[in-house]
Amino acid sequence: MTDQRIYNFNAGPAALPLPVLEEIQGEFLNFKNSGMSVTEISHRSSYFDAVIDEAIVRAKRLLNLGDDYHVLFIQGGASMQFGMIPMNFMGDGESADFINTGTWSTKAIKEMGIQGKTANVIASSEDKNFSYIPKEIRVNTDARFVHLTSNNTIKGTQFYEFPDTNGVPIIADMSSDIFSKPLPVEKFGMIYAGAQKNLGPSGCCMVILRKDFLETANEGLPSMLSYKTYANKNSMYNTPPCFGIYTIGLVLKWIEEEMGGLEKMEAYNIQKADILYDFIDGSEFYKTTAEKYSRSLMNVTFRLPDEELEKEFVLRATEHGLGGLKGHRSVGGCRASIYNAATMESMYALVEFMESFEKEKTS
Amino acid sequence: MTDQRIYNFNAGPAALPLPVLEEIQGEFLNFKNSGMSVTEISHRSSYFDAVIDEAIVRAKRLLNLGDDYHVLFIQGGASMQFGMIPMNFMGDGESADFINTGTWSTKAIKEMGIQGKTANVIASSEDKNFSYIPKEIRVNTDARFVHLTSNNTIKGTQFYEFPDTNGVPIIADMSSDIFSKPLPVEKFGMIYAGAQKNLGPSGCCMVILRKDFLETANEGLPSMLSYKTYANKNSMYNTPPCFGIYTIGLVLKWIEEEMGGLEKMEAYNIQKADILYDFIDGSEFYKTTAEKYSRSLMNVTFRLPDEELEKEFVLRATEHGLGGLKGHRSVGGCRASIYNAATMESMYALVEFMESFEKEKTS
Repeated sequence: MTDQRIYNFNAGPAALPLPVLEEIQGEFLNFKNSGMSVTEISHRSSYFDAVIDEAIVRAKRLLNLGDDYHVLFIQGGASMQFGMIPMNFMGDGESADFINTGTWSTKAIKEMGIQGKTANVIASSEDKNFSYIPKEIRVNTDARFVHLTSNNTIKGTQFYEFPDTNGVPIIADMSSDIFSKPLPVEKFGMIYAGAQKNLGPSGCCMVILRKDFLETANEGLPSMLSYKTYANKNSMYNTPPCFGIYTIGLVLKWIEEEMGGLEKMEAYNIQKADILYDFIDGSEFYKTTAEKYSRSLMNVTFRLPDEELEKEFVLRATEHGLGGLKGHRSVGGCRASIYNAATMESMYALVEFMESFEKEKTS
Repeated sequence: MTDQRIYNFNAGPAALPLPVLEEIQGEFLNFKNSGMSVTEISHRSSYFDAVIDEAIVRAKRLLNLGDDYHVLFIQGGASMQFGMIPMNFMGDGESADFINTGTWSTKAIKEMGIQGKTANVIASSEDKNFSYIPKEIRVNTDARFVHLTSNNTIKGTQFYEFPDTNGVPIIADMSSDIFSKPLPVEKFGMIYAGAQKNLGPSGCCMVILRKDFLETANEGLPSMLSYKTYANKNSMYNTPPCFGIYTIGLVLKWIEEEMGGLEKMEAYNIQKADILYDFIDGSEFYKTTAEKYSRSLMNVTFRLPDEELEKEFVLRATEHGLGGLKGHRSVGGCRASIYNAATMESMYALVEFMESFEKEKTS
């Protein structure tokens, strides 16, 4: 069966590590000798306590998070967070700063407006079609927080360094690069990430919240929209997304035990991205779309000489067992999403195919 | 492996049909020859279009829903619905009617209050510790809707008939008995159900909405909290809980193709519940907690002569491969949750064990 698997470059839901998938499959009818599937165990059982505890402990250990941070699991994806953030953290007359690096930042800003909250866009790369990460970032000292999207899946850009905010907490949407490298966690009041790129299946969002920042959150909110509910009940005020949390725990175990932690994960990701960027940079046929100093290690966006060739490229790649290379429907072009689970082998296979396709079309 | 599985009487997450689990396991590394796991396919792919379409078509066919109903998938469980309902459907100066049959109804009422909305409790069984379903129900003609919980998992009660509301739409939380029997759908403006009892894994809530009722919903809400967002985007405004929707589709296929539809499903459920209730009614040792005319076909709640015996009963049952028989932590006692996926075989095994335990303790 496994030899029928393709090289999966989907942007999300995306490839998961094969050993994780095999472990899930192997114990799917009988989880840890419980005689039940992991989808059938009670969230109030010792079986599930061990599952959620392990996911949290591993997340904290990998990111060097102290006891001053909560690790929460919330449903609804990053888009639900766009709504919960203003609800929880904006008071009357307050404003927050936003860095706009594309679609996802724009959506987060829009949800502030829907709730009548003031979002100051203090930096934006809209002038060049979101092809870079702004460098000059000056944070308003009275901002409630600074919001940014650490990696833009659509435009293929990524923050390498996070801005100096003079103590204003950063809230970061890290859906597409969380756990891909070590983080200066002390800069962040909150980090959130939909699972379906670097962490697990869709339907589960990890939210990392600094406790002193959480204490400033608003009261009197609907229970399921208040971060305090999740923090007070260890994400189990009601039934959590158990299968997602379980898978996330296995992925984090794989990062720790198979990949050797986040420093090594980052080195591996750099190595993978370099293979692809080096090849593209050496070619006249393919061109990356992001400016060089802002290029993402997770989503490599590129164009071919024309749209007809791009169409054929994606189609032929699929026939060769290289899937998910079509760019986001809003921008077109091509994109290889190479999250943590993408293998070195898949990079070589992709470059080999790109090389032969170029040769065929240019000779 | 399968012979190591227990008889699973968990209240939720709960037992799923074994053929469904086996199908998931069998194709977990290679979904429909895609070369990817179902957790790795894009929600914008034709693979997933087929998954969500099938789940919706089967839900509509099983419940005889016409084109005047949406079938939506929303994250956050029924508890998120408790918050979304007032947000979407309550206007200034309006009130809604609530029937209070226990914990879940009470929580739904509480969330109305958090948002400053008026919930008129028009019927309640609180006077007898929620051991029955109220019969005399008079709906206020100007109520925005009437809310009820069709089955109470904790107290083991269930509506057999739904009240006559003179056209006021019913909103029903059917988390624990949806698809267990045919429904008079025309009475309902909205039906919602967390998946983890009769439908699939936790993390996915099915919401059935009558289109003309949805048209009356409020505008200007956060995108992920507006039912209109889900209806306009076929539940894919952002990445939906793909694994949950996939599993729900397989469970509905099992109900249609293996169990023969909802009339037969109901007959099977009655037969299963009768085996257990008949045995308990014939015993002096076990006693049900719900009044006879309100007894649930899904959750059979019962007591033994004292708490020590109950503790031993649950422990010994577990050792005999009968899991999940402990009552809800808020009420104690014992409970066998026997949703659609519970087999006839499991009923005989349970009664046999109960009989021998009684014999041992009373002889």
